[in-house]
Amino acid sequence: LIIPFPAIWGHEGAGTVESIGEGVTRDKVLMFPLPECRECSSCLHPKSNFCLKERLVSISLTFFHPIYGTSRFTCRGRKIYHLYGTSTFTEYTVVHEIAVGKIDDDAPMDTVCILSCEVPTGFGAVFNIAKVRMFTPGSTCVVFGLGGIGSAVVMACKASGASRIIGVDIKEEKFPRARTLGVTDCLNPQKLKKPVQEVVVEMTGKGADFAFEAIGLIDTMVATLESCHPSYGVGVIIGLAPTNSQLIFDPMLLLSGRTLKGGALGNYKTRSCIPKMVTDYLQKKINLDPLITHTLPFESINKAFELLQGGHCIRCVLLF
Amino acid sequence: LIIPFPAIWGHEGAGTVESIGEGVTRDKVLMFPLPECRECSSCLHPKSNFCLKERLVSISLTFFHPIYGTSRFTCRGRKIYHLYGTSTFTEYTVVHEIAVGKIDDDAPMDTVCILSCEVPTGFGAVFNIAKVRMFTPGSTCVVFGLGGIGSAVVMACKASGASRIIGVDIKEEKFPRARTLGVTDCLNPQKLKKPVQEVVVEMTGKGADFAFEAIGLIDTMVATLESCHPSYGVGVIIGLAPTNSQLIFDPMLLLSGRTLKGGALGNYKTRSCIPKMVTDYLQKKINLDPLITHTLPFESINKAFELLQGGHCIRCVLLF
Repeated sequence: LIIPFPAIWGHEGAGTVESIGEGVTRDKVLMFPLPECRECSSCLHPKSNFCLKERLVSISLTFFHPIYGTSRFTCRGRKIYHLYGTSTFTEYTVVHEIAVGKIDDDAPMDTVCILSCEVPTGFGAVFNIAKVRMFTPGSTCVVFGLGGIGSAVVMACKASGASRIIGVDIKEEKFPRARTLGVTDCLNPQKLKKPVQEVVVEMTGKGADFAFEAIGLIDTMVATLESCHPSYGVGVIIGLAPTNSQLIFDPMLLLSGRTLKGGALGNYKTRSCIPKMVTDYLQKKINLDPLITHTLPFESINKAFELLQGGHCIRCVLLF
Repeated sequence: LIIPFPAIWGHEGAGTVESIGEGVTRDKVLMFPLPECRECSSCLHPKSNFCLKERLVSISLTFFHPIYGTSRFTCRGRKIYHLYGTSTFTEYTVVHEIAVGKIDDDAPMDTVCILSCEVPTGFGAVFNIAKVRMFTPGSTCVVFGLGGIGSAVVMACKASGASRIIGVDIKEEKFPRARTLGVTDCLNPQKLKKPVQEVVVEMTGKGADFAFEAIGLIDTMVATLESCHPSYGVGVIIGLAPTNSQLIFDPMLLLSGRTLKGGALGNYKTRSCIPKMVTDYLQKKINLDPLITHTLPFESINKAFELLQGGHCIRCVLLF
């Protein structure tokens, strides 16, 4: 895979419509890395959200604009590529209307911007994909990765009545915050004497009801499946694996009854469902504040990356 | 893995209780390769059936008796091993009470014996695991393998209102029968110019709603997943893969929303649910007859194996 450069990165963000055509208004919007065309078989199906106009699974990995198939950016005559159809690390971007959702006029963009991807991905993994609520209250959940998405998963597990939430991360700095969100047990795999999945199985008797992979590593994806109860465990993969990597496991792990699922944007139909979550935030029905640890001016973007890579922040919002 | 020999094979069968202790009666019974202890976390869970007293996933692969951990058979003083706790290729066997289900006195054992494994495995894959009924009538299903279990899958897909059922097998001899059961399109992968999953995707637009693997080969397991719609497709693996084999696929196949599930005995709690299917057969609510193509005396067991391996039979019942 050749990733085309130069490109404008950034997949998540909120903004105001600037250049408008006929019938279009200067609304506040969220930009979605997953569009909703409302015409393809995914959009028309009641249970799915993976709009087939998205190129996430294609070889180009959406470094081209997913709709036009080419770039809308240039710099001194040179073509600049898009990322996920949003390209939010820029003051002005070009986004197709099927990837934009109008939000409330009084929404604070420096907070609700994380509803563009992070929060629905985590909440939906629990509510829509694993359907933790469908089981007896008191489920046992394990969450691999306690970053932004993993933290949203934890919040949703707690809201679904999970009685035990095991959080797994190698950055112990994240543990105190994770505990305030609902994690009951923190595990650092680097400090364990045996594989983390074996420890989870021992802690839970035979395995967790639900396990979530919010990192994007093959090893933790397999550990997610192995952490689940052999008969009724559900493993949900939401982390983005390295390109062309292969998940490898013994199919007997499934034959006893496990389920392995995945999903993008928490299986929410983006334009139809996510703007309502902005309203829910304004009505204090959901809390986003614990998921934003830093806010910096855009000029400090490299500092933001350092914070993220060092494991020191959950989400750093960049302001223009 | 070392499979201990000599062993009494055969995992599926019906019989009459012969040696009885106090409080036990001379009932007609089915013997289940998956027990139901009603005490373990799987049995106590409302949604699962994989009794943890089963050793299917263990290294010994149940060539030892799953409950006693040793053998109850000898021949001229030499130990003979069990298979799946049932060992039905013998006139007299020893089965633990948690692996036996009492059935109606007037049940014809030469027919209902296939309810001991084959039929629940296929029916339950559709009704309990994939839950084809939960989707809009008119689902598209693909079934890899048109033997006994695959044929039961086909019957259940049809009963669930599937509008298109694609059957895949390399033995075209099976196609006419499969069509009478409900298959609308037959594919022989050896006669196709491209991989069968690509053909299924083309035939269905973007992929089937549901795909079932009823063979037990890694290649067809991956093809099952790839045959599903990327966003809402559900792949169900019920074939038993070779020991210690590895399923290998790109996790991006899941990230777009696919589900991969597995299950044994169709997720039916064996003792609690399957005897009712015998009653359903007696009341003509379900039809088992198309699934039995041959009946032979036990002495012709090697002929039965030849028929099975040659792809000439669906199920051959052996009579004592």
